[in-house]
Amino acid sequence: MAMVCLSDFEAYAKKYLPKITWDYFAAGADDCTTRDENILAYKRIRFRPRMLRDVSVMDIRTKILGSEISFPVGIAPTGFHQLAWPDGEKSTARAARAMNTCYIASTYSTCTLEEISAAAPGSLRWFQLYIHRNRAASQQLVQRAEALGFQALVLTVDLPYTGKRRDDVRNSFRLPPHMKVKNLERAFEVCKMSLLDPSVTWNDIYWLRSLTRLPIIIKGILTREDAELAVRYGVQGIIVSNHGGRQLDEGPATIDALVEVVEAVRGSVEVYVDGGIRKGSDVLKALALGAKCVFIGRPALWGLAYKGEEGLQDVLRILQDEFRLSMALAGCASVSEIGPHLVQFSKL
Amino acid sequence: MAMVCLSDFEAYAKKYLPKITWDYFAAGADDCTTRDENILAYKRIRFRPRMLRDVSVMDIRTKILGSEISFPVGIAPTGFHQLAWPDGEKSTARAARAMNTCYIASTYSTCTLEEISAAAPGSLRWFQLYIHRNRAASQQLVQRAEALGFQALVLTVDLPYTGKRRDDVRNSFRLPPHMKVKNLERAFEVCKMSLLDPSVTWNDIYWLRSLTRLPIIIKGILTREDAELAVRYGVQGIIVSNHGGRQLDEGPATIDALVEVVEAVRGSVEVYVDGGIRKGSDVLKALALGAKCVFIGRPALWGLAYKGEEGLQDVLRILQDEFRLSMALAGCASVSEIGPHLVQFSKL
Amino acid sequence: MAMVCLSDFEAYAKKYLPKITWDYFAAGADDCTTRDENILAYKRIRFRPRMLRDVSVMDIRTKILGSEISFPVGIAPTGFHQLAWPDGEKSTARAARAMNTCYIASTYSTCTLEEISAAAPGSLRWFQLYIHRNRAASQQLVQRAEALGFQALVLTVDLPYTGKRRDDVRNSFRLPPHMKVKNLERAFEVCKMSLLDPSVTWNDIYWLRSLTRLPIIIKGILTREDAELAVRYGVQGIIVSNHGGRQLDEGPATIDALVEVVEAVRGSVEVYVDGGIRKGSDVLKALALGAKCVFIGRPALWGLAYKGEEGLQDVLRILQDEFRLSMALAGCASVSEIGPHLVQFSKL
Amino acid sequence: MAMVCLSDFEAYAKKYLPKITWDYFAAGADDCTTRDENILAYKRIRFRPRMLRDVSVMDIRTKILGSEISFPVGIAPTGFHQLAWPDGEKSTARAARAMNTCYIASTYSTCTLEEISAAAPGSLRWFQLYIHRNRAASQQLVQRAEALGFQALVLTVDLPYTGKRRDDVRNSFRLPPHMKVKNLERAFEVCKMSLLDPSVTWNDIYWLRSLTRLPIIIKGILTREDAELAVRYGVQGIIVSNHGGRQLDEGPATIDALVEVVEAVRGSVEVYVDGGIRKGSDVLKALALGAKCVFIGRPALWGLAYKGEEGLQDVLRILQDEFRLSMALAGCASVSEIGPHLVQFSKL
Repeated sequence: MAMVCLSDFEAYAKKYLPKITWDYFAAGADDCTTRDENILAYKRIRFRPRMLRDVSVMDIRTKILGSEISFPVGIAPTGFHQLAWPDGEKSTARAARAMNTCYIASTYSTCTLEEISAAAPGSLRWFQLYIHRNRAASQQLVQRAEALGFQALVLTVDLPYTGKRRDDVRNSFRLPPHMKVKNLERAFEVCKMSLLDPSVTWNDIYWLRSLTRLPIIIKGILTREDAELAVRYGVQGIIVSNHGGRQLDEGPATIDALVEVVEAVRGSVEVYVDGGIRKGSDVLKALALGAKCVFIGRPALWGLAYKGEEGLQDVLRILQDEFRLSMALAGCASVSEIGPHLVQFSKL
Repeated sequence: MAMVCLSDFEAYAKKYLPKITWDYFAAGADDCTTRDENILAYKRIRFRPRMLRDVSVMDIRTKILGSEISFPVGIAPTGFHQLAWPDGEKSTARAARAMNTCYIASTYSTCTLEEISAAAPGSLRWFQLYIHRNRAASQQLVQRAEALGFQALVLTVDLPYTGKRRDDVRNSFRLPPHMKVKNLERAFEVCKMSLLDPSVTWNDIYWLRSLTRLPIIIKGILTREDAELAVRYGVQGIIVSNHGGRQLDEGPATIDALVEVVEAVRGSVEVYVDGGIRKGSDVLKALALGAKCVFIGRPALWGLAYKGEEGLQDVLRILQDEFRLSMALAGCASVSEIGPHLVQFSKL
Repeated sequence: MAMVCLSDFEAYAKKYLPKITWDYFAAGADDCTTRDENILAYKRIRFRPRMLRDVSVMDIRTKILGSEISFPVGIAPTGFHQLAWPDGEKSTARAARAMNTCYIASTYSTCTLEEISAAAPGSLRWFQLYIHRNRAASQQLVQRAEALGFQALVLTVDLPYTGKRRDDVRNSFRLPPHMKVKNLERAFEVCKMSLLDPSVTWNDIYWLRSLTRLPIIIKGILTREDAELAVRYGVQGIIVSNHGGRQLDEGPATIDALVEVVEAVRGSVEVYVDGGIRKGSDVLKALALGAKCVFIGRPALWGLAYKGEEGLQDVLRILQDEFRLSMALAGCASVSEIGPHLVQFSKL
Repeated sequence: MAMVCLSDFEAYAKKYLPKITWDYFAAGADDCTTRDENILAYKRIRFRPRMLRDVSVMDIRTKILGSEISFPVGIAPTGFHQLAWPDGEKSTARAARAMNTCYIASTYSTCTLEEISAAAPGSLRWFQLYIHRNRAASQQLVQRAEALGFQALVLTVDLPYTGKRRDDVRNSFRLPPHMKVKNLERAFEVCKMSLLDPSVTWNDIYWLRSLTRLPIIIKGILTREDAELAVRYGVQGIIVSNHGGRQLDEGPATIDALVEVVEAVRGSVEVYVDGGIRKGSDVLKALALGAKCVFIGRPALWGLAYKGEEGLQDVLRILQDEFRLSMALAGCASVSEIGPHLVQFSKL
C-alpha cells in the first residue's frame, strides 16, 4: 500500500489500531460537527493562484517565537502516544527533530518530560499545560519543563471539563494498565481530568507568568474578544483551536475563527492554528489568512501508528512536499510572499 | 446498550414500539420537511465560546412564570402516553417532579387530570387546552385543571384542523380500544378532532381569561405579527412551536421563528420554544436566542418507551448534564450569563 | 395500496406503465436539472402561517378569465393521453368537468377536439396551440376549437425545436401505430415536430388575434422582458412554464420565474404557473406569489394511468383537500386572503 | 449502446481503457476538488431564455484570431493521444479538420508536429508550448511549429512543477515503452517534466515574441491581476484554464474565473476557456459570459478512445447539435446575439 497522502495514514490507523484506541483518537464531542467542520471549512476557501513568477528556488522555512523550523507545520499536543506506538512520545520527539520542526509535548504524555527531552536533545520543544486544582503540581511541571529546555509553555484553556465524546463513554475508554500518565504520577492519581481546575481565569496567566521566564502561548481561543484579552494579559502567542472538535461541539471551525483572531491581535503576537489540516494546501491557506504556523494532531498519531518515528516523518515529509508544491503553483517562492490576496472564501 | 445521548432512546423506541405507534409519534405533516428542519436549524447556529471564566460552580436553575425549575427544560404537551408506557401520563408527571421541572399535560392524555395530579402532588404542572365547539366542555376542563392545582393554561392555536400525516392515514391510526382520552369522556366522543372549533379567534382569549385566574400561555406562534397580537391580547407567555412539524409543513423551524418572536415581544412576556431539541447544547442555543425555557416532545416519549418514569428521568438527566457542560465550555456559570453574544448564524 | 398523496400515483405509474411510456412522461431535457428544480424550488419557500383566524368556513373557489373553478388547479396541456389510459383525453375532460376545473387540451391529443368536447359538454376547456409552418393548418385548428366551445387559446412559445430528452432518444420513442395525433391527421403527417415553425415571432400574436375572438394566453414565458412584451402584444394571460423542464435545461424553476413575471405585468393580465406542483401547499405558495391558478402536467398523467377519469379525479381531490387544509393552517379562509405576506424565501 | 451525450463516451472510455490510462486522463490534483468544481460551477449558472425570436435560420459559426470555425468549440491541448487510440494525434487532427474547428496540439504529443501537419493539411492548428530549461529546445519547437503552418502559439503557464495526482503516483504512471514524446526526442530525454523551467516569468513573453511572428496565447490565467499583466505583455489571447484541475487543487472553477478575466481585459484580447464543458449548453454559458470559444480536453480523449477520428467527430457533432439547440431555445439565432443577459448566477 503506497502512502501518498495523509488519508492513507488515516485508513491504515483505522484498520490496524484497536477499535477503542481508534475511537479515542477520532472522537469528537457530541455529534462531531465541529470535528468535521474543521476539515470542511478548508474546502470553502479557494486559491487565487498567480502565474509566471520565478519559483525555481523555494524557501519554505519560517520562524516561530524566533526559532527557525523547516516548514510551518508543528506537532500539536495530543495525549497517550503509547496507544499508537510502543515508544510513545519519544518517537514523536525524534521525528520532529529529524524534520526540524516543533513538537508540543502534552501534559498527558505516556513518557516523562525527561524521557522526551533525552530522546531528542537540542530539538525545539514546547510544553503543553493544564492548570490543576493542585497548583503546586502545575508549578512543579512548569519548572521541570523549563529546566529540561522546553522553550515555551502552551496553556490549554478550553477544557475546564472534558467534552462529551460518546464513543469513549460507550467504550468506557481508559488507559490500559501498563501505560501511565507519567508526568503526573508523583503529584496525583493518573488520568483524572476532574483534577483540572474549572475556576481558572485570566488572572491565572499572571500567576503562571510569575513561575517561569518561558514565553506563554494560550491554546483554545476562538473569538476576537478572547484574543484581545490574551494580548492584554501579555501572552506571547495564541493557538486558535477547538481541541480537534473534542470539547464544545458546534463552535466555529478553527480556520474560520483564525480570521477574526488575526484581525483582533493586529500583529502584536504570533497566531497559530490547529484542527483540520490534511493537505499541504491547507497549510498554505492558514498562512494566507495570517497564521504563522499550523499544528497537526490526529495526522501525527496516524503516522506514529503506521511506523512510529519513521511513520510520523513520512507524514511530515508529505505535508512538506505538498506545501512546497502548493506554494509554487500559487506563485510564491518564499513564505514571506504568502498573504491574504492568495485566497477567497467561496460563497457556497 | 448504553444510553448515552437522546438518539439512543430514539433508536430504542423505534425498535421496540409497535410500528403504528412509532409512526404516530414520529409523524410530520406532508413531506416532514418542517419536522426535520426543526432539528437541522439548530445545526446552523454556531457558538462563540469564551474561555478562562470561572465555571467551577455551575447554576443551571431558572424560573418560568415565577416558579423555579432545576434547569430550563420542561415536558411539552403530547398525547396518548399510554401508547409508550402502561402508566401513561402518571409516569410522565412523576418523572417531571423527580427532576424538578414543569410538565404540560395534554388535553389528549390517556389519564385524567385527577390521576395526573394525584401521581405527582405538589409538582409544577401546566394544562394544555384546545377550544372545542362545545365551549361548555372546554370551560369545564379549564375549571377542573385550575381546581386540581395546574398552574397555567397552555392554549394550542395551530390546530384548527389536524395536519395531514401520511403514515397515520396509511396506518389508519386510532387509539387501541382499551385506551381512552379520559379527560373528554364525559363531554363528547373520544378523539374526534373535528370537535375542535376552527372558528376560534383572538377574541376567544378574552373568553378564556373570563373563566380562570390562571396565567394563559399561547402555543403555536411563529411570526412577529402574531407575537404582537398575543401581547396585545394579554397572554402571559408564548410557546414558539410548529406542533413538532405535524401541522403546516414548510413553515419555519421553531428556533428560527424564536428570533423574530423574541424581538417582537421586547421582554413583555416570557417566550419558550419546542421542537428539535436533541442535545443540551440545543437548549443553550435557544436560551442564547431569548427563550426562557424549552420543552421536549418526542424525546420524552422515547424516554417513556424505554423505561417509563425512570426512562424519562434518564432523558432529562442526560439533557441536564449536557446543558451544564455546554454552558461551562461556552464560559457561562449561570443561566443569567447566557445571551446572544454566545451564538452566530452560520451562512451555510 | 392507499393513494394518500401525489407521489403514490407517481409510484404506481412508474410501476405499471410500459417503460418507454414512463420515460416519455418523466423525461426532462439534458441532465433533467430544470425538471427537478421545478420541484426543489418550492421547498425553498417557507410559509409564515398566521393563527387564530376564523377558518371554519373555507372558500377555495377562484375565477380564471372570468370563469369560476372549484379551486385554483387546472390540467396543463400534455400530449398523448392514450399512452396512459385507453380513453385518452376523453377521460381527462370528464375528470376536469367532474371536479369543476379547467382542462387545457393539447394539440398533440390522441383524441380529436370534437371527441374531447363531446365527452364533457359544457365544461371549461382551453385549447393549446403550436404555430405550424403550414399556417392554414393552424388557422383551421383555431377555428375548430372556437366553434367547439373552447374558451381560450393557449399558445406555446418555448418549442421552436424539441428539447433533447436523452431517454426518448435511447428508446427511439414514437407513438404506437394504433394511436394517432388525430387533430393533425388531415393537415399533415403525424407527430413531426419539425412541422412547427421556428420563425414565429411576437408579430404572429397579431396574426393569431386576427383569426379568433377567443382570449389568447401565452405559455412558456420565464423572464420579465418577455412578460412585458406579452402585455404589449395584448395577450390575456401568461402561463409561466418551462415545459416541465423538457425544453431548455438549466433555465429557472417556474416558481422562481413567477415572481419576476408577476412583478412585470403589474396586474394587467392574469398569470398562471405550471411545473413542480406536487402538494396542495405548493398551490398555496404559487398563489401567495401572485399566480391566479396553477396547472398540473405529469400528476394528471399519473392519475390517468392509475384509473383513468376516476384516477385523475382522485389526484385532483387530494390536491383540493391539501390546498384547503394548507390555507386553513396558514390562516386563510378564502383565496382572496392569500398574499405575499404568507411566504418567505429560505436563504438555504 | 447509443452515444447520446458526452457522458456516454466517458462511460465507454472508463470501461474499455486500461485502468492506468483512464486514471491518468481522469486525474485531478490532490482531492480532485477543482476538477469536479469545473463541472459543478456550470450548474450554478441559469439561463434566462427569451421566446418568440425567429430562430429558423441558425448561424453558429465564429472566428478565433480571425479564422472561422464551424462552432465555438476547439480541442484543448492534452498529452499522449496514442494512449487513447493507436493513431494518436493524427486522428485528433483529422477529426478537427473534418468538423472545421481548431486543434491545439500539445508539446507532449505522441506524434511529431510534422505527422500532425501531414495528417490534416490546411486545417486550423495551434501549438501548445512549455518553456524548457533548455531554451534552445523550446526555440527549435517554436520555429518548427511556425514552419509547419501552425497558426498560433499557446504558452501554458500553470505548470512550473507537475501537480500531485494521487492515482498516477499509486499507479507509477509512465508512458508505455513503445510510445514516445516524439517532439522532444532530439532535444532531451522523454517525459521529464523536471525539464520544464520553473523560473519562467512574464519577461519570457518578450523572449518568445522575439522568436516568432505567430500570435501568442497564454493558457492558465485565473485572476484579473494576471489577465491585466497578460494584456500589458502583449499576448493576443488568454485561455482561462486550471489545467483540468490537475495542477493546484482548490483554485477557482474556470467558468467562475472567466468572469473576472473578461472584465479585466475589457475586450482588448480574445478570451477562451477550458475545463468542465460537458454539454452544448455549457458552451452557450461560456459565450454568454464573454468567452470567444471554448476548448474540450477529456471529452476529446473519450471520443478518441471510442472510435478514433470518427469517435471524436461524434463528440464534436453532439456538442454542435446541443449548442445549436440551446441557442435556439434561448432565443439566439447567431453567436452575435449571445450576451450576459442570457444568464444569471444561482445563489444556491
